[in-house]
Amino acid sequence: MALIVQKYGGSSVADVQCMQRVARRIIKTRDLGNQVVVVVSAMGDTTDDLIELAKKINAEPDDREMDALMATGEQVSSAVLAMALHAAGAEAISMTGPQAGITTDGVHLKAKIRDIKPVRLKKALKEGKIVVVAGFQGLNPREDIATLGRGGSDTTAVALAAATDADKCQILKDVDGVFTANPRVVADAQKLDEISYDEMLEMASLGSEVLQSRAVEFAKKYGVCLEVMSSFNENPGTIVREEVRNMEDIVVRGIACDKGQAKVTVRGVPDKPGTAARLFKELANSNINVDMIVQNISENAKTDVSFTVPRSELAKAKRVLDALENISAGGVMVDEDVAKVSIVGVGMRSHVGVASRMFDALAKNTINIEMIATSEIKISVAIRKADADKAVVALHKAFELGKAAKKSGAKKK
Amino acid sequence: MALIVQKYGGSSVADVQCMQRVARRIIKTRDLGNQVVVVVSAMGDTTDDLIELAKKINAEPDDREMDALMATGEQVSSAVLAMALHAAGAEAISMTGPQAGITTDGVHLKAKIRDIKPVRLKKALKEGKIVVVAGFQGLNPREDIATLGRGGSDTTAVALAAATDADKCQILKDVDGVFTANPRVVADAQKLDEISYDEMLEMASLGSEVLQSRAVEFAKKYGVCLEVMSSFNENPGTIVREEVRNMEDIVVRGIACDKGQAKVTVRGVPDKPGTAARLFKELANSNINVDMIVQNISENAKTDVSFTVPRSELAKAKRVLDALENISAGGVMVDEDVAKVSIVGVGMRSHVGVASRMFDALAKNTINIEMIATSEIKISVAIRKADADKAVVALHKAFELGKAAKKSGAKKK
Repeated sequence: MALIVQKYGGSSVADVQCMQRVARRIIKTRDLGNQVVVVVSAMGDTTDDLIELAKKINAEPDDREMDALMATGEQVSSAVLAMALHAAGAEAISMTGPQAGITTDGVHLKAKIRDIKPVRLKKALKEGKIVVVAGFQGLNPREDIATLGRGGSDTTAVALAAATDADKCQILKDVDGVFTANPRVVADAQKLDEISYDEMLEMASLGSEVLQSRAVEFAKKYGVCLEVMSSFNENPGTIVREEVRNMEDIVVRGIACDKGQAKVTVRGVPDKPGTAARLFKELANSNINVDMIVQNISENAKTDVSFTVPRSELAKAKRVLDALENISAGGVMVDEDVAKVSIVGVGMRSHVGVASRMFDALAKNTINIEMIATSEIKISVAIRKADADKAVVALHKAFELGKAAKKSGAKKK
Repeated sequence: MALIVQKYGGSSVADVQCMQRVARRIIKTRDLGNQVVVVVSAMGDTTDDLIELAKKINAEPDDREMDALMATGEQVSSAVLAMALHAAGAEAISMTGPQAGITTDGVHLKAKIRDIKPVRLKKALKEGKIVVVAGFQGLNPREDIATLGRGGSDTTAVALAAATDADKCQILKDVDGVFTANPRVVADAQKLDEISYDEMLEMASLGSEVLQSRAVEFAKKYGVCLEVMSSFNENPGTIVREEVRNMEDIVVRGIACDKGQAKVTVRGVPDKPGTAARLFKELANSNINVDMIVQNISENAKTDVSFTVPRSELAKAKRVLDALENISAGGVMVDEDVAKVSIVGVGMRSHVGVASRMFDALAKNTINIEMIATSEIKISVAIRKADADKAVVALHKAFELGKAAKKSGAKKK
């Protein structure tokens, strides 16, 4: 008997009808002879509604209280889904994150899973029950509820799959899988049949909203077989897996675009050893994710340092920088009109000229590159936000990711 | 420094403005030099909305899942109220029932509090924080969330007051206190300045919705000084306290009316020793509260047994009875059109003729009495539901509980 972990997102359990449909699908999976653990997100827009309520009461609500508030969304959906399974004749039990044995570190709003002791969960499975776990949450060392950040239910699902040694982890969404680019932006974007963990990791951290990147890290670390698929049909999805040899045949797997970034420039930073380290250490201590970094050529022992941060963390970053008076005395400038566009593919490692092909495509469309960051398997550029969609379309075409190109086998040259 | 426990009901925290008003009132109490523990109910109609959601999914939702679902209402309001207190400049922390150390027995939907170990709560108070506890809930022996039944937040407040040795427990409501009768039914119903625990206990269990009866039991058992008052003004409320001598001067303290009852009649019960005991034992085992009981004169070694149960427990009671084939073979009849009207007062112990005065008043208004139940300090009658309001008005007048009567001192004769 196989053990399958299925994760259903908020739009898949948005209302009573959705819940009933999801219940039928779960039972179908069980009837094929599987044990099933289900992870659910909050119903529909619940999380956004709770955030809105909090902001009306307090413009900067306390992190711990936000977590206590938001975690209720998943608690509701897990209990309701268990009731829907009962109504459909199945034995099922809901569990909160803490009841499922999930413990986290001490950070609120984007806690990391520390450990999972799924004692109750395994017992319930053994009793023949379907277990429905509230996603996105765990218990921290102070015995407070902590949430795992946007998309955290993905991570709950993958981590539970790892902890229970599940045969498969299916992430069920309102899209058919992982695409070469956002289908709303690129008309002939293609669903990928497979993608490597590393490529998916880059895609996720670069703004593709298909999976939380921590979920992919977990899957890679523990070798969890991950499938991203639609909850609205039964088409095969995208398998996220260990890289195999022929994956490198494809130079670029997909294009990611992140419009949720902001560029911060600190002017006149003293150009002394350790200054930049101090700057980024303070930001890291406040749990701010700094991404692309550029340092200008020094003049008069002063330099300008620019970097990007998620726009949601901009206010906090600004406060940290303003407090570092020795470093930021020259002024802190903020630019919210940037976007980050990236090409991702393990094939880059064995193909040359990828960067020049990218820059050429952008230049031909008169798109100015402001910052560049690269890794072995991705190239990211910061550009004007207004140019972002145009850039994605241009790159999708330049790297022949569309349907016509795929059919002619052009990608394999 | 005194410690005050305040409990705010759902209508007092129904929206953002209410939350802010409640936060100001809490801070005012603290600024008078008190430590404050706050217990909150779910915001507005949240609990009813959650029940409705559950019923749409499953006509008979599982008790454990219902508790997991409903408990989120209070978790939300406690976190939001803590945020409102922060916004008003106060230090505050929210706690779920389990975090406040509240453990219950193993019954779902109307669990009883077993024990309170308020370790975290006391620590937070010592740190100068206002503690906001989610009412209505605790952790049961299986480590599941259990709720305490309708009005359970009252019990949470009184039990926390007992466990922390608080100086006072204030129940803040949308009414000014405990009245001689429901002011919506009796125009000149009077707010009581004081009432004894025993009288309040009878009023509560007889359908007055001011306080949960278990809360009053707790208050009596642990001598908690209880005050029922309005959250919308600062008028003095009703003090619920140990009985003192002159309380007996008043024959009837108030009139209670319960329209949520149903009458069950089991026909042709074998008139043998132990049969009735078996019947009521099975009902008790299913946690069904049986109230008034009447057994008819036996004919042919068979008898009819009638009793009342809360209408919400009628379906369950019917199932239990139908399963007792030896006893209920003669048929089970159900009547949902009954109401229970009661007069309550410790003065009954020392005054004669109270029952006849009650029956006389009902007879004069052509109201037929179907069942009677009495205790030392109350007399209850079951009548047609359509007659209930008329009966309350008649009794309020007969026992001179209105404003005019009070002024003339008529009650003290």
